[in-house]
Amino acid sequence: MRGLVWDGHRLRFVDAIPSPVRTAETALVRVRLAGICSTDLQILRGYMGFRGIPGHEFVGEVIEGPAPWPGRRVVGEINFSCGRCVTCRNGHRRHCPTRTVLGIQGADGAFADFVRIPVANLHAVPDEVDDQTAVFAEPLAAAHEAALQTAALTGGRTTVVGAGKLGLLVAQVLTARGDDVSVVCRNDVATQRAAGLGLQVTDARGAERGRDLVVDATGSPEGLSIAMGLVRPLGTIVAKTTIATAHTIDLAPLVIHEISLVGSRCGPFAPALEGLRQNAVSVKPLVDAVFPLSRGPEALEAAGRPGALKMLLAVGED
Amino acid sequence: MRGLVWDGHRLRFVDAIPSPVRTAETALVRVRLAGICSTDLQILRGYMGFRGIPGHEFVGEVIEGPAPWPGRRVVGEINFSCGRCVTCRNGHRRHCPTRTVLGIQGADGAFADFVRIPVANLHAVPDEVDDQTAVFAEPLAAAHEAALQTAALTGGRTTVVGAGKLGLLVAQVLTARGDDVSVVCRNDVATQRAAGLGLQVTDARGAERGRDLVVDATGSPEGLSIAMGLVRPLGTIVAKTTIATAHTIDLAPLVIHEISLVGSRCGPFAPALEGLRQNAVSVKPLVDAVFPLSRGPEALEAAGRPGALKMLLAVGED
Repeated sequence: MRGLVWDGHRLRFVDAIPSPVRTAETALVRVRLAGICSTDLQILRGYMGFRGIPGHEFVGEVIEGPAPWPGRRVVGEINFSCGRCVTCRNGHRRHCPTRTVLGIQGADGAFADFVRIPVANLHAVPDEVDDQTAVFAEPLAAAHEAALQTAALTGGRTTVVGAGKLGLLVAQVLTARGDDVSVVCRNDVATQRAAGLGLQVTDARGAERGRDLVVDATGSPEGLSIAMGLVRPLGTIVAKTTIATAHTIDLAPLVIHEISLVGSRCGPFAPALEGLRQNAVSVKPLVDAVFPLSRGPEALEAAGRPGALKMLLAVGED
Repeated sequence: MRGLVWDGHRLRFVDAIPSPVRTAETALVRVRLAGICSTDLQILRGYMGFRGIPGHEFVGEVIEGPAPWPGRRVVGEINFSCGRCVTCRNGHRRHCPTRTVLGIQGADGAFADFVRIPVANLHAVPDEVDDQTAVFAEPLAAAHEAALQTAALTGGRTTVVGAGKLGLLVAQVLTARGDDVSVVCRNDVATQRAAGLGLQVTDARGAERGRDLVVDATGSPEGLSIAMGLVRPLGTIVAKTTIATAHTIDLAPLVIHEISLVGSRCGPFAPALEGLRQNAVSVKPLVDAVFPLSRGPEALEAAGRPGALKMLLAVGED
């Protein structure tokens, strides 16, 4: 099969990769469309020491697997857990200590013709949700996670720092649940895109302080410091930013103002798919371009440019 | 009056400081005993840019003030708030944005013969609590704050990193509420002192991982990284460490494991005083030495040595 391969130095398009072989508890999925996430860009900077085929946002069609999956259009949760350990049995499968993670840790990803996904991780895509919408299920689930983790703050004064791919999803989810949401945008392009989605926008300097909840979705080391400057004493910051390197930060304000900093990663697919079905969240305006798989390296480069939003890889249509 | 004065360069004992003048809503307290906290040592390293008389842990006697305070033995909360702003009216006076803080920010402290304390901040000391016990009210209140902020984790598997003054108080409070507490000690002296208080001890290497709650009471930049290595996914870290400088840290594990990091500063005096009255917490074994006020600079130096616990200043008995 064809796919993109990261060897630790270079991302290459390869057209003769052995296809994955299905096992008893997995399905083989023919990828139709895959999304490029900031985590993919971090992987190319060394994040998680990953080697292999990246890609964890996809929509595809099951071509091999147990009933009732073959022929179904699916998206898939990215944490492949054992299902048997204490963490899994407690309902926290996404945190299974022996998990592999699709295209991120120990498992080849979706930037390829075929990908192997545990059946337990599959979600059928409703017919009314088209591919370009369904491919947002994974990042939208991650946005829902921020909402779940801060359920007690519903309806509060919320600021999302960062108007990138994830920030704009988080802002929409928190607006939909009733928060008074403001989005901190870094430049005019971001401001226009956020405003175009009906979101309240501001720049970092003009942003209102004393917010109940601040979400750092900047993907940059500065995001947390900006968030600490905007949150109220005893308030909550949700950290959505994973970056590949350690950085210098003064955490004294967190202690002095008794702020809660909540790390937030993957989330539940069910509310994300339901939100997409109901058009509760607008995702298509986030798509910047669709590249054929063979131009994947170029697509990742484009995704890394300032102001870029979602780049998609049309795998099935290449 | 006599007192210790920090001018930004040197801590000096001065015997001709003008005594504070009482205002309508304050009381004048003759200090009997004052405690040296790690925050005082941080102040000598630049923390908060404080200048003046440090000291925020004290027990004393009211010599001037409205009824019924004159003659009473008291301890005092250290955040002097306006009482009128939204934060104060919401019950969060310790976070009043225009507050001054005793011996830390904009208000002369207790390393002196007399100190001025808002009446709203005073707490009478029960007769059965002697001075050397009562002087622990403030740090014990800070330990109770960690318990209050993690009430939902009561009875869980808890690790306190750091067997210093504050760590040993936190460990005792969390043990008393029913947690299964382990204390990470850095050296033999700390291990012996923690074990002497009946606490379970371990070193960082041997510490059990996957804990529900980890409290960083190290007072050092490494504490948070150690805590991140010990807490379970979706677990909670309480940060008790305030340090004067920014430092380098990799926060990716916090996001990946969806850890909650809760800043924790000052706490409620009422449960602390009640705990002291009931001997629920053992504080006298934490006292290393009592210095006369005139030897204050020497006492702060001693408090900064590795393994040192609580140094007290006997102000009234000098």
